[in-house]
Amino acid sequence: MNLEGRPQAPLMSNPRADRVRDVAKLAGRSSRLKTGRFLAEGPQAVREALSAHRAAAVDGGPAVVHEVYATEACLDRLPELADLASGVMLRLATDEVLAAMADTVSPQGIVAVCHTSTATLEDVLAAGAKLVAVLCEVRDPGNAGTVLRAADSAGADAVVLTASSVDIYNPKAVRSTAGSLFHLPVVTGADFTDVIHALQAAGVTVLAADGYGNVNLDRLQDLSAVRRFGGTAAAASSRPDGEDAAAEAALPQLEQPTAWLFGNEAQGLSDAELAAADHRVAVPLYGRAESLNVGTAATVCLYASARAQNG
Amino acid sequence: MNLEGRPQAPLMSNPRADRVRDVAKLAGRSSRLKTGRFLAEGPQAVREALSAHRAAAVDGGPAVVHEVYATEACLDRLPELADLASGVMLRLATDEVLAAMADTVSPQGIVAVCHTSTATLEDVLAAGAKLVAVLCEVRDPGNAGTVLRAADSAGADAVVLTASSVDIYNPKAVRSTAGSLFHLPVVTGADFTDVIHALQAAGVTVLAADGYGNVNLDRLQDLSAVRRFGGTAAAASSRPDGEDAAAEAALPQLEQPTAWLFGNEAQGLSDAELAAADHRVAVPLYGRAESLNVGTAATVCLYASARAQNG
Repeated sequence: MNLEGRPQAPLMSNPRADRVRDVAKLAGRSSRLKTGRFLAEGPQAVREALSAHRAAAVDGGPAVVHEVYATEACLDRLPELADLASGVMLRLATDEVLAAMADTVSPQGIVAVCHTSTATLEDVLAAGAKLVAVLCEVRDPGNAGTVLRAADSAGADAVVLTASSVDIYNPKAVRSTAGSLFHLPVVTGADFTDVIHALQAAGVTVLAADGYGNVNLDRLQDLSAVRRFGGTAAAASSRPDGEDAAAEAALPQLEQPTAWLFGNEAQGLSDAELAAADHRVAVPLYGRAESLNVGTAATVCLYASARAQNG
Repeated sequence: MNLEGRPQAPLMSNPRADRVRDVAKLAGRSSRLKTGRFLAEGPQAVREALSAHRAAAVDGGPAVVHEVYATEACLDRLPELADLASGVMLRLATDEVLAAMADTVSPQGIVAVCHTSTATLEDVLAAGAKLVAVLCEVRDPGNAGTVLRAADSAGADAVVLTASSVDIYNPKAVRSTAGSLFHLPVVTGADFTDVIHALQAAGVTVLAADGYGNVNLDRLQDLSAVRRFGGTAAAASSRPDGEDAAAEAALPQLEQPTAWLFGNEAQGLSDAELAAADHRVAVPLYGRAESLNVGTAATVCLYASARAQNG
């Protein structure tokens, strides 16, 4: 092993050391809340964390990574991770120590203790956010992570989790984001009413993703395509029954700054959450499925906005 | 409890009975392969299974449900399930027996032993399929189930799993489908080369969902919108660099009968699988995510086809 630029401190080899236990405790919410830290496991997540840490250092933003633990074998295999970690405390540890720290069976030789996000919706909106995903009482960590990753793919400017949603720093949720957790601002513990007020004050249209919504997402996409490509006459002729010109004019435009509300897996959005939105939008079901899972619904909605906004 | 139309056989109360063990064994693939049966757990899945069973009986199709086990409390709470089960062997059992049979911690008082699908791609194509999802080496049961549910939502005519994909009758996969497993033909254990030949012989365009694909899904959707709404001049002006009129004309049309290939979670589609497709289509990534999970990619692709085909 080439030790240049590598950590010089002694190898950590005791899986029962206090420091190891402290890291392992981050699998629990209470320890995460107390310390303001969480664990990113495996090379992909650690790489994204370190990249975000570097970018934040350049921009004068808050630190992302607190410390990194890695095996010698991992750093030999992936030397770019040691390079990326310059300026971050990097400690060598044995496989046993890594296994004792991590939630995954095999963290593949590297974990990073990271700081939970301090992003605020106010900052996100002040920076001119055009697409925001709001998770209201989403309870499954895998679903929350999947929605966050889909939001990143669709180029969303932020993801907001209301206070009653699952903790996005739960190890399973972190894994499901596949690194996207470090790609965009994540606002946690938000009060739903405050979120709605802030979005509306900033001129962001709030759309509730709702299987029973009276607005059809396909219609919004059609109208967006018509505005982009012309063909107004054809669009008018495609107007569905029950929609007159005034009703069409009142529909939200996907090109405009938009926040999507996604609800609980079993119950969807509550009546109060639906009432707070500007529109209730349904993703069409073409087959015989009775509903969409929240990850699928979020994907369709966020990609519809992304297409319209980037057209 | 009203016993009219209810099972009269004695209550099954021994969780160690052979019959109970036989049902529990369906959690393992070898038992499913040997018996050609699998277990649907919980009221939603059983309801969809029984509805499909009824529809098959009317159409002269093969039986879907072999037998149902339920608690008295469940049938009292959901009497429509007993009605739906008329003509199917329905046995009363205790909570302990249900728990011993089921993979889930709580099967909510009802499970159905079902027959695995005998659908063939030939039948699906002979019936004029316009949208087919093909899973190639998808390995995670939750992902496979999510793609199947998304395919149902998008109105796909069938889902095909190649021989090296996960078993869709795995309990976790069945749960992830949320009943969609019973909504559309599912072809399992298919040989990849045979599938491609059958699709192409039937005039179905084969599109590989591929993050490195040279065809942009957004461009296909734009061209589809232009064909629908007119505005050809605007479309020509939106032509991306490097695409001349001949290249545009060679692009696949989403309105046409289409099969989508979705690959392994980690590796994507293999070179051989990519080469077999007519086109390699990339879902655009607007943010900083490096890739999409297979459920998200399948959702975007299948919904793009559904919108074009149902416009």
